[in-house]
Amino acid sequence: MNIVLLGSGNVATHLAIALKAIGENIVQVFSPNFDNAKQLADKVNSEAINQTSEIDSQADLYIISVKDDAIVEVAAGLSKVKGLVVHTSGTTDIKVISSLVNKAGVFYPLQTFSKAKDLNFNNIPLCIEATDSEQLELLNELAHKLSKEVYKLDGEKRKVLHLAAVFACNFTNHLYAMANQLLIKNDLDFDIIRPLIAETANKVLVDLPENVQTGPAVRNDESTMNKHLSMLSDLPELQEIYQTLSTSIKLAHK
Amino acid sequence: MNIVLLGSGNVATHLAIALKAIGENIVQVFSPNFDNAKQLADKVNSEAINQTSEIDSQADLYIISVKDDAIVEVAAGLSKVKGLVVHTSGTTDIKVISSLVNKAGVFYPLQTFSKAKDLNFNNIPLCIEATDSEQLELLNELAHKLSKEVYKLDGEKRKVLHLAAVFACNFTNHLYAMANQLLIKNDLDFDIIRPLIAETANKVLVDLPENVQTGPAVRNDESTMNKHLSMLSDLPELQEIYQTLSTSIKLAHK
Repeated sequence: MNIVLLGSGNVATHLAIALKAIGENIVQVFSPNFDNAKQLADKVNSEAINQTSEIDSQADLYIISVKDDAIVEVAAGLSKVKGLVVHTSGTTDIKVISSLVNKAGVFYPLQTFSKAKDLNFNNIPLCIEATDSEQLELLNELAHKLSKEVYKLDGEKRKVLHLAAVFACNFTNHLYAMANQLLIKNDLDFDIIRPLIAETANKVLVDLPENVQTGPAVRNDESTMNKHLSMLSDLPELQEIYQTLSTSIKLAHK
Repeated sequence: MNIVLLGSGNVATHLAIALKAIGENIVQVFSPNFDNAKQLADKVNSEAINQTSEIDSQADLYIISVKDDAIVEVAAGLSKVKGLVVHTSGTTDIKVISSLVNKAGVFYPLQTFSKAKDLNFNNIPLCIEATDSEQLELLNELAHKLSKEVYKLDGEKRKVLHLAAVFACNFTNHLYAMANQLLIKNDLDFDIIRPLIAETANKVLVDLPENVQTGPAVRNDESTMNKHLSMLSDLPELQEIYQTLSTSIKLAHK
């Protein structure tokens, strides 16, 4: 398949490398910043471009992998291409691009990407959607070559999934950061808590989180919770989060 | 070493098995509930007892691994033994037992334990404390046989660590549960989000959480955050948590 990739960020980079690895042809990498386009294009033996007018109109698939609020602008530059145009956003409706291009779809990988960290696409859930069944089948075939976890999801379910991911990933990471804030303040190293973080995640890979909740809140251990709140008296922000989450745990398990 | 274990819960069970595995002798397992004592005693070829009067007074080490509010009562039954008495609590001051027994210490494993799940003690951080340096050395030797991560920490630092663990483990698990609540409500399976949970934890095993924060809050993406808040309008509890944590992320990264 001949693919034009529009974007050069974390998702675009991982996707380009994974697509190349399964033998797809990345014909062009587009970015308004030519250096960024070039950096990624070089990795996947592709051509870097930074002008919409240079986009190859004969490709089979155009993948828009840019910030959500830039999707419309990029899609507008693809109004004349015949191939399928997809975006990779969890929150953006398919209509945002289907009103601008001939054939539209969504190809949303549910994972957290960092440029510096290699990822095995094989178990990354890929959520796909398209405006017609033929295009959906094309995306389905491609997705299955990349991953064993492929989900055909409409926009509403995809948005829920993205919201759930904010809780399970973004907020979780911020809790790790708050733990580190407490450790740093007391000359303790983050290393000491890493095995606990790993095991907390490991547990829910084989069980459901509601079955393995531990800690003072689920035990209704008011004495420990009060000690903790008083330890946080000079960190009102952490105190509020402690209070809010403890109340929520107690409610969920009462 | 001859060890008496007082308790039969998750921590006691994992600790007994690990101590047995390195060749220590668990002479007795005490629990007010004889069946519980017996169940664990059988696993480690030990004697089950449920009367304080039956406790062997000649052991080298007494490990109290019971709920925090039961520690005092159990320690009071050990006032006549000559061996070292330790508790395994993150939040309980050493003074709670040192005022009751001859030699006191703390042996706190920083991990989340479930009876059903095997754990390798080798990378579980063990935090130790004792009222005198000779006893601390005894605990240090034992701890190093169990784990490569041994920390001599005073009570204040241990309490901070326990509090940090509530953020990094208990609260994190509750965020997983809230993600699952959203998924269930929309007929989506928790499986779809498990790879993301694993990778979110994996990232901070090699980096610091503040360096790898992603999501709408750190990008100041108000449009997505507003969409999410409106999707949560019928779940006010989740909405409050979304608001509180997003505000905190924005503050931490501004």
